[in-house]
Amino acid sequence: MNFQSTTKADFKVVGTRVPRPDGVDKVTGRALYGADFNVPGMQVGLILRSPHAHATINSIDASEALALPGVKAVVTSADWGVPEDAGLRDVQDNCLARGKVLYDGHAVAAVAAKDMATAKKALKLIKVDYTPLPHVTDVDEAMKPDAPVVQEARADESVPAGSGPNVTHYCEFGHGDLEAGFAKADKIIERSFTTAATHQGYIEPHACLASYGNDGKADLWCTTQGQYFVRDLCSGIMGMEGSQLRVTASEIGGGFGGKTTVFIEPVALALSRKCGRPVKIVMSRVDVFRATGPTVSSSIDVRIGMTKDGRITAADAKLRYQGGAFPCDTVDMGAQSAFAAYDLEAVRTQGWNAMTNRPRQAAYRAPGAPMAIYAVESVVDELCQELKLDPLDVRLLNAADAGTKASYGVTFDQIGLKATLEAAKEHEHYRAPLGENQGRGLSCGFWFNFGGNTSVSLAINADGTVSVTEGNPDIGGSRASISMMAAEELGVPYDRVRTVITDTASLGQNDVTDGSRVTFAVGLATIKAARAAIQVMCKRAAKIWGIDEEAVIWEDGAAKPSGPNAGDFEPMTLAEIAAISSETGGPIAGHHEVNAEGAGVSFGVHLADVEVDPETGATKVLRYTVFQDAGKAVHPDYVEGQMQGGAVQGIGWALNEEYIYGEDGRLQNAGFLDYRIPVASDLPNIDTVILEIPNPGHPYGVRGVGETPIVPPLAALSNAVSRAVGVRLTSLPMSPPKILKAIMAKG
Amino acid sequence: MNFQSTTKADFKVVGTRVPRPDGVDKVTGRALYGADFNVPGMQVGLILRSPHAHATINSIDASEALALPGVKAVVTSADWGVPEDAGLRDVQDNCLARGKVLYDGHAVAAVAAKDMATAKKALKLIKVDYTPLPHVTDVDEAMKPDAPVVQEARADESVPAGSGPNVTHYCEFGHGDLEAGFAKADKIIERSFTTAATHQGYIEPHACLASYGNDGKADLWCTTQGQYFVRDLCSGIMGMEGSQLRVTASEIGGGFGGKTTVFIEPVALALSRKCGRPVKIVMSRVDVFRATGPTVSSSIDVRIGMTKDGRITAADAKLRYQGGAFPCDTVDMGAQSAFAAYDLEAVRTQGWNAMTNRPRQAAYRAPGAPMAIYAVESVVDELCQELKLDPLDVRLLNAADAGTKASYGVTFDQIGLKATLEAAKEHEHYRAPLGENQGRGLSCGFWFNFGGNTSVSLAINADGTVSVTEGNPDIGGSRASISMMAAEELGVPYDRVRTVITDTASLGQNDVTDGSRVTFAVGLATIKAARAAIQVMCKRAAKIWGIDEEAVIWEDGAAKPSGPNAGDFEPMTLAEIAAISSETGGPIAGHHEVNAEGAGVSFGVHLADVEVDPETGATKVLRYTVFQDAGKAVHPDYVEGQMQGGAVQGIGWALNEEYIYGEDGRLQNAGFLDYRIPVASDLPNIDTVILEIPNPGHPYGVRGVGETPIVPPLAALSNAVSRAVGVRLTSLPMSPPKILKAIMAKG
Repeated sequence: MNFQSTTKADFKVVGTRVPRPDGVDKVTGRALYGADFNVPGMQVGLILRSPHAHATINSIDASEALALPGVKAVVTSADWGVPEDAGLRDVQDNCLARGKVLYDGHAVAAVAAKDMATAKKALKLIKVDYTPLPHVTDVDEAMKPDAPVVQEARADESVPAGSGPNVTHYCEFGHGDLEAGFAKADKIIERSFTTAATHQGYIEPHACLASYGNDGKADLWCTTQGQYFVRDLCSGIMGMEGSQLRVTASEIGGGFGGKTTVFIEPVALALSRKCGRPVKIVMSRVDVFRATGPTVSSSIDVRIGMTKDGRITAADAKLRYQGGAFPCDTVDMGAQSAFAAYDLEAVRTQGWNAMTNRPRQAAYRAPGAPMAIYAVESVVDELCQELKLDPLDVRLLNAADAGTKASYGVTFDQIGLKATLEAAKEHEHYRAPLGENQGRGLSCGFWFNFGGNTSVSLAINADGTVSVTEGNPDIGGSRASISMMAAEELGVPYDRVRTVITDTASLGQNDVTDGSRVTFAVGLATIKAARAAIQVMCKRAAKIWGIDEEAVIWEDGAAKPSGPNAGDFEPMTLAEIAAISSETGGPIAGHHEVNAEGAGVSFGVHLADVEVDPETGATKVLRYTVFQDAGKAVHPDYVEGQMQGGAVQGIGWALNEEYIYGEDGRLQNAGFLDYRIPVASDLPNIDTVILEIPNPGHPYGVRGVGETPIVPPLAALSNAVSRAVGVRLTSLPMSPPKILKAIMAKG
Repeated sequence: MNFQSTTKADFKVVGTRVPRPDGVDKVTGRALYGADFNVPGMQVGLILRSPHAHATINSIDASEALALPGVKAVVTSADWGVPEDAGLRDVQDNCLARGKVLYDGHAVAAVAAKDMATAKKALKLIKVDYTPLPHVTDVDEAMKPDAPVVQEARADESVPAGSGPNVTHYCEFGHGDLEAGFAKADKIIERSFTTAATHQGYIEPHACLASYGNDGKADLWCTTQGQYFVRDLCSGIMGMEGSQLRVTASEIGGGFGGKTTVFIEPVALALSRKCGRPVKIVMSRVDVFRATGPTVSSSIDVRIGMTKDGRITAADAKLRYQGGAFPCDTVDMGAQSAFAAYDLEAVRTQGWNAMTNRPRQAAYRAPGAPMAIYAVESVVDELCQELKLDPLDVRLLNAADAGTKASYGVTFDQIGLKATLEAAKEHEHYRAPLGENQGRGLSCGFWFNFGGNTSVSLAINADGTVSVTEGNPDIGGSRASISMMAAEELGVPYDRVRTVITDTASLGQNDVTDGSRVTFAVGLATIKAARAAIQVMCKRAAKIWGIDEEAVIWEDGAAKPSGPNAGDFEPMTLAEIAAISSETGGPIAGHHEVNAEGAGVSFGVHLADVEVDPETGATKVLRYTVFQDAGKAVHPDYVEGQMQGGAVQGIGWALNEEYIYGEDGRLQNAGFLDYRIPVASDLPNIDTVILEIPNPGHPYGVRGVGETPIVPPLAALSNAVSRAVGVRLTSLPMSPPKILKAIMAKG
């Protein structure tokens, strides 16, 4: 049989706005989240956390806690070995401190007890003897030679000699003659920026239920973006073989990258192993803020030279990131993406990571990119102001395109940046008038998008319905988009397909739901699995008709005789073939495993209008439009939702969100009252314009969508505010006091 | 690549006694059974049952129940449509009576309430207005022309005109000239037998948790032998597409055939749909007895002619089975298996099914066969007594063998009956002396064994472990045997493989765990899936080595270059190939879907020694040995366990177990105090002798094992007791009063 070639015009399901499969369950409460699994004999697990930013642990005495009736077990890092692998060791040491606590909120010990009240009492009875140590929470401070040392000797081989004691990683990208480039410039601007650590702010706190058997097998239910990675981390920490730990991902109440690692899961497993009963741990919001990963905070210098007609002649950036108390290389992605939107002759980015006494960072939507691009796009905007150039024209003039050698070394394939910029330029928003104290900002954004290891199984049920089994938690609509691609390829209606996310023991490896990889990579594997199933169905039809397999084609959801046999038999639909599969050989299925390559990069352009109250420094977002190349938009609602959600998270990051540490190194705003994320009343509708420049690396042209839209808002807002108040802002968040101070300084 | 041919001598894992994967979980309480799933908002479901053996339902008034605070929903059969398919309709009508109740305990209505106390109160407030009808519970009574009519017009096309109103099915098998055969006989014995309905007696009552969403999707957790069949039945009853219902099978606390259908699951779904909350139903033991399926009871006539040297010249049997208030064709299997152990020139079996006012029968381990073979083997034994022939010699003389045309039409392939009989004959048990009031009985047994629709996926994890995913609940050790076959084929140690049973949405179709099909069919699919994975691994190795795929063989768990490339590269083990799978193309897996054929039939011979107390009629089993052709015994512990467990259930059936109905048609012994299954102190050790005659239909020679051993005990015990007391017993159970009566009658 042969596959019909699918072109854009052919789509019947892809591109439509079908009902979301998780919507009703989520609004009616039927969906089961991480805290919603309960089994008999279950104990409550609670974690004791450090009140110090940095301290040596001299001793932990749990004897009184263990003597409390109802207390089943107490664990500390002594309950685990010390993994050889440094990355795994860091994950483990973050889950339970070993030797010293490295930040306020660092887990020290955990208790399992019959109920919450007993567990709380027990925590208070655990006596930890600390010797406080000097601490550092700021990235620039941490890079000084005499800074308090967070961890000894953690620099990797990339770090030049003589870097500060907390520097763990260094990177450099670029090409061309920088000084020659700057020499050609009519105007050079160099500025320094800072961004605060922000939290992913998912609604659902981390939660898990662990059940460890006396024979060394275990089961874990948890809210996660990647049950396979949880399996690998937890089995590594617990000293188990991966196959002995079955991890089931619950429905997920938001992740945004923050649920791509473990915090409580190995602790629950250790407690369960020790007490011989299932143990559930559910984090409080305070603990989520204090002890799960926000993104990195940064300090960035950017220097860009431009000719008076807007051509960028040279670009240089120095990025200093801190990702908390452990080594971290998020700065690599910042350094690679900083200038990705530009076709440059001379470009360099240098990046440093420094440890601080803060929680270990976790990925946050396009990790590393928003702050780097914020700094670059701020300087580009200021150059446009200084040179009196249209900021969109300048971006179009310098825009990367197919064939551009990016600053990080790759040469782009078909990309949608120019089309996106042109769409913004043609949009009415760009020409709409502005009032007093109002400003308009724009910024480009970029994200790589990933592929990765992916396994998909697809079963044709005897009733003509289709079950797709995948292993990636659905954080942004992937169950819908995967079902749609299966339906498209098989030629059946969407509502005959149900996609489920299975556990680690029921399907081969799947990398974490991150890097905007799922609709691309799982979609690709689903299409290939559907084609494998189609091959089986054509074979069955050939058998039924008694003709050659090669003489059967698949069209419109049915097998048809073709070639010399064309018209000899009525076509058999999927449902007809499925109904008699038992008589023709058994169940029909298709499978595909792949380490997917060819995820297309994506670009977005955001336009933001703001009004700043000159008396309070408060910023109101008046209007916001997102333009993005989504490749083929499988389900436009979800694509728009991603574009809107990313913009909103970026707006929060730009205007209000920040981790605030006191002099004592303790987090002062560990709650949604003091850590202010935007709510609906803070925002206008976020308008969206989807551009569909097909990704040649995917059969349907799909690109990643979810991360790019968090990248531009930081600069778009900063540029808008700077233009509104007439002074260049260089520090995020642009909270009212900071804006007021800038206005005052201007005079 | 080429597969090494596997012969018996090659086995490294298969045939060993590795630790069972579920043992620790079951003894420590970690295993999660049907009642062990809990989710937020869950309601308690309870079922109201008929107090009448047969009655018209005039009305059901649930208004008072619904007015009780905490009551969320009441359902009756009116909450469902009426399925066109008669089989599905019967399942549904058994779950909730429609129009009339057909037996004592028949479900009438169900309530969902916030807790058990409220649910119990609510049940009492549901008012059902009945008009009692005449009833019949005995099969011979039910077949009379003037018997009370259980259901109108339910006979299928097989039933001859003029059969009684309750006869629903008739069958006939056989060949040869019966009268000519009897004419050649020196001795003809004709006897009538009865057997009682017995319950499977699983430890775990039926339990389920249903969660039905407002968008029509649902999830169901339950204890079952077949989650796919549960899905099909429940989705049919609920009017859903199969793919919209995801069924997860819990660990199972025994099934023995009794958990191959549904009783409470559609009721829980209907309640959940109606109240919009998850609903859990757990049956009580009383309800399990009253309203789940025991096996059929029977009334059987057997006539056999024999020459004086022991040759059977003709054999005829008439089987009358009742399987409760619905049509049932279990008698087909009784009629087919009755004379399967014999190579006969003239044979006939006729079977009738009659409806009675009893619970709808469910499959029970070799359904239909034990009672038929009990009757046949009793008459053969009596002929041996009368003709003074050795009962083993007579069986050997008449034994079916490869090439025998069985009475039910098939011609046997390689079978192990003669070898099994010879093993019994040579065994010391057969020659051991007997004392006063003691007797020795023997019987042959037979079961078909099934294949069926099967899907298996097998993933090679990056850490070199192997995950096997199958869809058949493990009722007899299949997780171990499947892991062993995967390990054997892949060439890795057993403890690197973990087999899990997944849900209906995560894997293609799998027929019910019945017919002793799983180790055969799932094993076969697992071996094929492993071979598919081996092919991928050889391909990866070829890619790494840069040689032709065909030049790579798999040996001892490793890919090796062969042919012209032999010795060019070091072999790569599974773990080595797996570790770098991400770089060579992605995850490695193998899959297989098949409707498996070629399950080999199996035969067993049981020897039982008993002593009967002539004053009380009580029987003590002194010694018991099971001989069985198991094909290749994958895990001998489990094979022996099946042989022992089947024997014990058969001993219970022979000696004590029975459903006792009163004149009012109500069940009088619905509990383990009054329905007496054998306990450890009732029994000697059951000795076992495994014979391994390979099944040519399976790559490792595996046959079904689990059902055959329940077939011979009925006759083995009856023959032993008859010889001990000197009078032929013809009715089961041989409870003390019945034996005493027989002894008294002899005088």
